[in-house]
Amino acid sequence: MTSEPYTAMKIAQIAPLWEQVPPVTYGGTELVVSRLTDELVRRGHEVTLFASGDSQTLARLEAGSPRALRLDTSIKEPIMYELMHVGEVFQRADEFDIIHSHVGVWSLALASVVATPTVHTLHGIFTNDNTKVFRQYKTQPFISISDAQRLLNLNYAATVYNGISVEKFPFFAEPQDPPYLAFLGRFSPEKGPQHAIAIAKKTGWRLKMAGKVDVVDKKFFEEEVAPHIDGKQIEFLGEVNHGQKAELLGNAAITLFPITWCEPFGLVMAESMATGTPVIAMNMGSVSEVIANGETGYVCQSYDEMADMIPKALKLSRQKCREHVETKFSVTQMVDGYEAVYEKIVGDRNFRHWFNAAIRNSLESFTSLKR
Amino acid sequence: MTSEPYTAMKIAQIAPLWEQVPPVTYGGTELVVSRLTDELVRRGHEVTLFASGDSQTLARLEAGSPRALRLDTSIKEPIMYELMHVGEVFQRADEFDIIHSHVGVWSLALASVVATPTVHTLHGIFTNDNTKVFRQYKTQPFISISDAQRLLNLNYAATVYNGISVEKFPFFAEPQDPPYLAFLGRFSPEKGPQHAIAIAKKTGWRLKMAGKVDVVDKKFFEEEVAPHIDGKQIEFLGEVNHGQKAELLGNAAITLFPITWCEPFGLVMAESMATGTPVIAMNMGSVSEVIANGETGYVCQSYDEMADMIPKALKLSRQKCREHVETKFSVTQMVDGYEAVYEKIVGDRNFRHWFNAAIRNSLESFTSLKR
Repeated sequence: MTSEPYTAMKIAQIAPLWEQVPPVTYGGTELVVSRLTDELVRRGHEVTLFASGDSQTLARLEAGSPRALRLDTSIKEPIMYELMHVGEVFQRADEFDIIHSHVGVWSLALASVVATPTVHTLHGIFTNDNTKVFRQYKTQPFISISDAQRLLNLNYAATVYNGISVEKFPFFAEPQDPPYLAFLGRFSPEKGPQHAIAIAKKTGWRLKMAGKVDVVDKKFFEEEVAPHIDGKQIEFLGEVNHGQKAELLGNAAITLFPITWCEPFGLVMAESMATGTPVIAMNMGSVSEVIANGETGYVCQSYDEMADMIPKALKLSRQKCREHVETKFSVTQMVDGYEAVYEKIVGDRNFRHWFNAAIRNSLESFTSLKR
Repeated sequence: MTSEPYTAMKIAQIAPLWEQVPPVTYGGTELVVSRLTDELVRRGHEVTLFASGDSQTLARLEAGSPRALRLDTSIKEPIMYELMHVGEVFQRADEFDIIHSHVGVWSLALASVVATPTVHTLHGIFTNDNTKVFRQYKTQPFISISDAQRLLNLNYAATVYNGISVEKFPFFAEPQDPPYLAFLGRFSPEKGPQHAIAIAKKTGWRLKMAGKVDVVDKKFFEEEVAPHIDGKQIEFLGEVNHGQKAELLGNAAITLFPITWCEPFGLVMAESMATGTPVIAMNMGSVSEVIANGETGYVCQSYDEMADMIPKALKLSRQKCREHVETKFSVTQMVDGYEAVYEKIVGDRNFRHWFNAAIRNSLESFTSLKR
């Protein structure tokens, strides 16, 4: 694949309005949309980004709201704005060769009644209820962000791994001394901070933890995390910005990823490896696709095994960790993946149009001859 | 207008899935949809009703869910089912001459991208947030259920008052002795049961009240209603079925409608008048359109004035109350109104198609001549 498109495409990107593109602190989906959109513009495509008005982009920005919905406390029904936002894109569907939706179920019904094809990246989680909507529209083209995410029987056009801007993560050739383990992520039971603490306590290692505590997770945090924070062995840094995140991960000897749910991608693993720090993770969801087991970290079957693998993980090559991310989880890789999907879908559609027109013309000529 | 359509139309009706059609106890929208749909079938139209699977209808039923969503406690995100339901209708838009939506904002974006016209009846309330969605799609044809409901600057095709099945309400030529005042409606501050109680206490009249208490209104009920219920002067009957409702209203000397908000229609007023009982109401929203002031009740400017009008209201003709409903708020009236809107919209569209085709043909003939 070349970085010059053989044909420039007119592409619409639909981001959620909840957070701006790129997000100020956290927001996995909006970060991916930002990197993807800017790189598509650099490659010569004509891209329109439908997002909140405070977004920053190289594409033409169409504001679905003046600013990120989460910032406007006067809004009681955010879904009303998402409805209008998605509606606006499909009202203008004729202007695009392809529409790329990052808003999950909200674009499916509209995508299935307009002529322009839409491809849907699955960023969110599946619930009992939203699963039924995805199933109803299973013939739409979907992109999974890992093979492990393919839990539903949908029409998958490709798996495209999330890409990170590797150049924005400095490489740390050596961990800090005294050494520590890192945990980064929301403090929710699914991300497993309670297991990170147990592993540190079992092995005597220091542990530095960072991430946000959502309102719904407050009780969990207070009961299962807070009592263990002593500022010495177990440190809690709260929410961190990009620079602090790179420091936390890069200076660590090992990053722990002790999830308890099927993580669809897990950006933290890629970010840690980008700084040179290997990852020890629980084998659920995408973990075995993101870590090169025995080379850039260890994929474990239990939290005890995670603790046992620390000595081996210390011996892994930090250089190799970085190279792994450069090869598999860069923005270039991600955009190559998406561009190939767009070209295939748009190409198939153009071919169908050309073929139908050709058949029609032949039939007409034939009919004229017979007259 | 005749009850035989000059052309039978293929009509889709979209009801919410929350409650079945018709509703078992309460559900204003679903009751209107039920009466409308059955009468359209009787008039010879080909009607498809998109509603919950436990609905009863003369039309072809397309089930958006096996049963009313409110009955299925396993559902955490009911909106997912409404999404699929509405999506299904528009996927099949080509099968219909016209689509009639009773689901508010949820059908607007889809209606604006398919070729089949959709008309939207406004049943719900306007919020700060949903108002913006209606405004975005203001060129779609809307039907208001009273002139008072036209608070937004939308493309109103008509006002069509809700119609009730007058024959299902027995006429009560005389009120019960000893006489009493009736209040029927949800026990929420907007419906004003607190004012009904104050009016009864001020005048010494007995008051019988019925209706449901929603979870959100429990505190209001316990603080402002319950302390006054003594089972003698102030009686509370709880939720009532159709027969009990007709008895409560028909045996009353007067029905009070002491609302504190802009009621868009107010079925209770029509139901009370159908049984012969005049209504004294606060002048907000549709009240002055539904009551013939001085003939079938009194439209008042204050709750004190409502109390003062009781002696005059006792002298009104109960026969006239019933006739008023038969003339203005019958199902026949309502369906005449909707049928006229459908015929106009479908007719305009057919004319546009014919006109465009005629122009195209003329141009082609002209071009051939010139060759």
